[in-house]
Amino acid sequence: MKIKYVLIDIDGTLFPSLEFAKRARKAALEAMRKEGMHSDVSSAYKVLMNVVKEKGPNYAHHFEIMLGCLGEGHNARAVAAGVRAYHKVKESIRPFPDVRRALGAMRKKGLGLYIASEGKAVKQWDKILRMGLQREFVGAFISEELGVKKSPLFYRKICRKLKCKASKVAMIGDRQEKDVEPARKIGMRAYLIDRKGRQGFGSLLEVARQVE
Amino acid sequence: MKIKYVLIDIDGTLFPSLEFAKRARKAALEAMRKEGMHSDVSSAYKVLMNVVKEKGPNYAHHFEIMLGCLGEGHNARAVAAGVRAYHKVKESIRPFPDVRRALGAMRKKGLGLYIASEGKAVKQWDKILRMGLQREFVGAFISEELGVKKSPLFYRKICRKLKCKASKVAMIGDRQEKDVEPARKIGMRAYLIDRKGRQGFGSLLEVARQVE
Repeated sequence: MKIKYVLIDIDGTLFPSLEFAKRARKAALEAMRKEGMHSDVSSAYKVLMNVVKEKGPNYAHHFEIMLGCLGEGHNARAVAAGVRAYHKVKESIRPFPDVRRALGAMRKKGLGLYIASEGKAVKQWDKILRMGLQREFVGAFISEELGVKKSPLFYRKICRKLKCKASKVAMIGDRQEKDVEPARKIGMRAYLIDRKGRQGFGSLLEVARQVE
Repeated sequence: MKIKYVLIDIDGTLFPSLEFAKRARKAALEAMRKEGMHSDVSSAYKVLMNVVKEKGPNYAHHFEIMLGCLGEGHNARAVAAGVRAYHKVKESIRPFPDVRRALGAMRKKGLGLYIASEGKAVKQWDKILRMGLQREFVGAFISEELGVKKSPLFYRKICRKLKCKASKVAMIGDRQEKDVEPARKIGMRAYLIDRKGRQGFGSLLEVARQVE
């Protein structure tokens, strides 16, 4: 066996993050409209996306700023309804249908599975727990904790922590420039997943069958 | 009819807030223990309560600080599990069994019902929405928004907003020094609820029958 450890990305790799984020934001805006927001959902959505872009995804007051931009002023009732609806959808995230089988197949091969993800550690663990996948992984490497975003240094630090040569580690993810290129640069094997099948592998299960 | 508007407190008056808070914290600590916290739940609970007391209830990182005090260091997985379990219990808050009937009885008498509460506006609205009571109230007066904690000034500001004499407003709550005394001081009628029946009224329904 050449590969010993497999690093796996979360968003877009284990579950359809963009789809859930969009659904959660729409649900939030519909709830806000029901509880007193005057603007219609589709105009509000456009403004919200600009706020998210400007403030970043981890900012705590997107809805307040959005209401301000819409000229609506303060409305705690609508904001509370929005946050509630947003979390309800977020709470319901589920992995892609092949994920559990793919992780099982890799574990059966004796591979040690780790999360390798960019973002806030508590938020990323929350996703793993919500999907009920925490028992599949030995641990997680998250950019916030490593102190560096996905880059050759990020992957080098992981090798150091695993006390393992890069050539014995594989990385799986859905983004060429974050998951594949920097990992390959330091000598890891890297697998690109593209569930739309344009390039790379069509599913995690396909990768799971290859890696060893 | 002498009384026109009725102000009602949330925590301890509409639902057993202390009981839910305790249950939520215990559930959080049990989840944290399951996901890697080493300390036992009852020692952790004592430390957590000290952290809550010191940092206040609206601080976002109680669990992180608690782990530090317990000498456990950083554990994002356990924190994520704790936050998740905590919110699950909090999400399940329900009003005292007589609340819906009491609110209905007062509305039938033509009284305008408002929330009068101390705390963060979004958090207090969240509770109302979770209990499904938002349609019972005309609106809410929350200390964060009025810029002052429960005091004669708090109640005076409400009268000004309602464009109404204090003598035509009643306040209902479970705390003598926050809900009853300052409201009476400016000439409101005020009802103390004590569900343990030691003093004041034993339930919201009893008050609802009296106020008019």
